[in-house]
Amino acid sequence: MAAILIQNACLLPIDEAMSVIDRGWVHVENGSIQAVGSGEPPRIDDAEIIDVDGDVIMPGMVNPHAHLAMTLFRGLGEDVDDRLFRYVLPMERKFVSPEMVRVGTLLGALESIEAGVTTIADMYYYETEVGRALDQAGLRGVVGQTLATFDPPDHKSIDQGFALVEELVAEFSGHERIVPSIAPHAPYSTDIDVMARVALWAEAHPDVPVQLHLAEMDSEMEWCRKNHGLRPVGVVEKAGLLRPGLIAAHCLHIDPFEIERMAKADVRVAHNARSNAKAGRGIAPVEAMRAAGIKVGIATDGPMSGNTLDLFSQFGPVSMFQKLLGHSRKPMPAAQVIRMATLEGAQVLGLDSRIGSLEPGKQADLIRIDLSAPRMQPVYDIYATLVFSAMPVDVRDVMVGGRWIMRGRNVESLERRKILRDAGQIATAFKAEMARIDAAG
Amino acid sequence: MAAILIQNACLLPIDEAMSVIDRGWVHVENGSIQAVGSGEPPRIDDAEIIDVDGDVIMPGMVNPHAHLAMTLFRGLGEDVDDRLFRYVLPMERKFVSPEMVRVGTLLGALESIEAGVTTIADMYYYETEVGRALDQAGLRGVVGQTLATFDPPDHKSIDQGFALVEELVAEFSGHERIVPSIAPHAPYSTDIDVMARVALWAEAHPDVPVQLHLAEMDSEMEWCRKNHGLRPVGVVEKAGLLRPGLIAAHCLHIDPFEIERMAKADVRVAHNARSNAKAGRGIAPVEAMRAAGIKVGIATDGPMSGNTLDLFSQFGPVSMFQKLLGHSRKPMPAAQVIRMATLEGAQVLGLDSRIGSLEPGKQADLIRIDLSAPRMQPVYDIYATLVFSAMPVDVRDVMVGGRWIMRGRNVESLERRKILRDAGQIATAFKAEMARIDAAG
Repeated sequence: MAAILIQNACLLPIDEAMSVIDRGWVHVENGSIQAVGSGEPPRIDDAEIIDVDGDVIMPGMVNPHAHLAMTLFRGLGEDVDDRLFRYVLPMERKFVSPEMVRVGTLLGALESIEAGVTTIADMYYYETEVGRALDQAGLRGVVGQTLATFDPPDHKSIDQGFALVEELVAEFSGHERIVPSIAPHAPYSTDIDVMARVALWAEAHPDVPVQLHLAEMDSEMEWCRKNHGLRPVGVVEKAGLLRPGLIAAHCLHIDPFEIERMAKADVRVAHNARSNAKAGRGIAPVEAMRAAGIKVGIATDGPMSGNTLDLFSQFGPVSMFQKLLGHSRKPMPAAQVIRMATLEGAQVLGLDSRIGSLEPGKQADLIRIDLSAPRMQPVYDIYATLVFSAMPVDVRDVMVGGRWIMRGRNVESLERRKILRDAGQIATAFKAEMARIDAAG
Repeated sequence: MAAILIQNACLLPIDEAMSVIDRGWVHVENGSIQAVGSGEPPRIDDAEIIDVDGDVIMPGMVNPHAHLAMTLFRGLGEDVDDRLFRYVLPMERKFVSPEMVRVGTLLGALESIEAGVTTIADMYYYETEVGRALDQAGLRGVVGQTLATFDPPDHKSIDQGFALVEELVAEFSGHERIVPSIAPHAPYSTDIDVMARVALWAEAHPDVPVQLHLAEMDSEMEWCRKNHGLRPVGVVEKAGLLRPGLIAAHCLHIDPFEIERMAKADVRVAHNARSNAKAGRGIAPVEAMRAAGIKVGIATDGPMSGNTLDLFSQFGPVSMFQKLLGHSRKPMPAAQVIRMATLEGAQVLGLDSRIGSLEPGKQADLIRIDLSAPRMQPVYDIYATLVFSAMPVDVRDVMVGGRWIMRGRNVESLERRKILRDAGQIATAFKAEMARIDAAG
C-alpha cells in the first residue's frame, strides 16, 4: 500500500500525557504508523497527502464486549420485564443459525464502522461466522465462541462446544485482524468443571483470550451462593479461571478484596454502563478498579441490552455514573474516558502492542472526526467535546491497518443496502414469532 | 399558508394510549393541525402532498429549562472543580452583553432546531435578546428574565431587574410564539423578600410564567438551613412562590412531603438528568413526582452543565437513572420518555392547549425522523428506537406553527455559517481571558 500523509489534524495520539497536538501529522505506510509529529510535515515521496483541515485524528475505538448478531433483537420487548424468558431464549433456540449470525453481525459491523469503532470483542454462537463477517468488514475482532450448559443454540454438549472452538482457532490462527477466543458464558450458566476445563485448555493455548460475563446480576450472586457458597468471583477463582488476560464483562458485584485479587491476577474488565443501568442492575466500581490497576475498557454489550454499538453513547453514562458514585464533578475526567475507549480497551484485549494509540510501529487504525456541528462548538477542551458533544455521525473516515473502510461516511467494505434488507427479512420472521408467542398468552 | 398533507407516516400523535399509527397522515393549514388519521388520506384541494415514506412524524420536542446563550461556555473548564468561581462568574461579569446573549442564543437555537426541539424555556440575562433570537429562529420560547441578588451582569438592583422584566413583557405580550417570563434565580441567590415580590407581581400577571432553580445543590440545602432554618422548598413556599404554574428546575433534594405539597400547589418540574449527574449531584425522584401527579419535562439545562441542547442525549439518562433508583428494568418505559419530551413538557410550560401533541386545533409543531440508520434497525418498538437509538442527525425536517424551519437537515430560518463564525470570535476572547486567569494563578 502506498504511503499516506495525514496532515493539519487536531491529533490525539493517546500518549501518557494525553497530548493534544495542533497541526499534527501522521505518516502511514504498509498498514502501520511510520511517524507522527506536529508542525511542518515531512516530505515523503509518492505519498498521498490528506489535509484534514483541523479535524480530529485519533485511534480507532475499541469495544471490548459485544454480541453483534443481537442487533436483530434490538429493542425487542424493550419494557417487557420477563423478555428474556418470554421472547429471547425461545427465539434464539428457534432462529440462531450461521446465516442469522452472519447477517446480524454484518449489521453490527456496519454500525460499528459508522461510529468509529475499529476493534470489537464479540461473544456469541457460530462464532466462526462472526470472524468471517468482521474480516469481510475490514474490522479487527476478538471472536469468542460461547460455551454454556443451558442448551445453547449451537452445541448440545461441551465436547461439541470445544469442537466449535477448535474450528474457530484453526480458521483464524495467525490472521492479521481476527483473534479467536474462547468464551465460557458466565459462572451461573457454565458449570464449574467446564470452566476448569477451559482454564486448562487456555494454559495450553496462551494466544487465545478467554472472555466471560462476571458478577452482573443479583440472581447470579444468589446462584453462586446457593450452589458453591461463594460469590461469582470466588467461583471463577475456584475454577482456575481468574488468570492473566481474562476479559471479564460487567463486574458490578465486586468488593474491595475481589478487586485486589483481580488486579493481582491481571484480569481485565469490560464495563457496560448503559446495559447495566438499563436493566436497573447498578453501577460498576470503575474508579476503584482502575485505582487498583485493573485495566477497564468501555463496552456496548449486545444491542438487545445496550441498543447501540457506538462508544459515544456510552461516554456520558461512563462519566456520569462515576461522578454520581463519587458525589463530585471530579471522577472520570473526559480525557480518561477517551483513553479507556482506545488504549485501555486495547490493553483489556491484550492488543496494546499493536493498536490503541498512534505511535510508530503500531497498526494504522485511526478515525477522523469532524468538529463543525453547532453542538460541538466552541471547543475549549477537545476531550470534553468528544465525550459530551460528539456523536457517531461526526466520524467522517475510518482506517484499519492502513486501509480506509469508511470515507466521507460511506462504508466501503460492506454492502449497506443488502445488509439492511437481509436484516429486515429476519426481523419480519421475529415479529411473526413474537405475535405467535403473545397470542399463545 | 397553503394546506399541507403529510402522509405515509409512522405517526405518533401522543394521545392517551400513546398510539402508533402506521400509514398515518396529518393535514396542516393556517399554521395549525386540521386533522390526523390513518390509512387513505383525504383529498384536500391545492394541498401540498408530502409522502414521508414511513418516517416518524411526531410533535416537536419541548425543552423546559435551558440557558441557550451558555453555548459559548460549553466544555469550558470541564473537569476543573472550581470552574464556576474561577472562570464562569468572572467571565460572565466581563463578557455578558446583549450581543453575546444574541450570538450564544442563536447558536443554541441552531442546535435545538437540528435536534427537533421546537419549544424552549430559557433563563438568562438580557432576556429580550433571547426572545428576539428565538423569534428570528422561528422557534417557540418561554423567555425568563433572571432576577438575582448576586450582582448579576444585567441589573445592579432588583428595581432594575424588574424594569428588564417589564420591557420583556411589553415587547412580547401577545406574541404568537414567544412568552415572556420572570425568573428569580434560586432560593440561595434571590433574597426571600425578592421572591415574595415576584410572587405578588406574578399574581398581577397571570399570563407570565415564573421559572426558578430549586433544590439542586448540597450547598443550597445548607444555605437554606442556615439562613431560614428551612429546606429549599420551604423557603420558596414561605416566599409565596409555591404557586400554580411555577416551573421548578432540578428538584433533586425533595422529600415525599414536599412532593405532596408541590403536587397540591400545581408546581411543574424541569428534570435535568445529565446536568445533575455530570456535577455528581444525584438523581431527581422523577417517578415519585410523576406518581404524585406532578408534570415533569425533560430539560437540557445550559450547555455549560449539560453540554448539548438536544433531548435525545437526555433520554438514556432519564430512563436509566430511574431504573437504577428502582433497581429494575421497569421504571420509566420508553413511551413515557417520549411523552415527557413532548406533551408533558408542554404541560410543564402551561402550553399544552396549543402544543405537545398532534391533534386538531393545536399548532402544527412537528418533526420528521428518518429510521434508516443501521443503529436504528430493526424497529420492534418505535418508542424504544427513539429513546435508545435515535440521535439528532435523524431529525430530517422541523415545522413550527405550520412553517418549515428545517428541511432536509438545512435550517432555513438561520444563517448557520455566520452564527458559527460569530460564536468562534467570542470563544477566542474567552480563551484569552482563561489564559489570563490561569497566568494570574
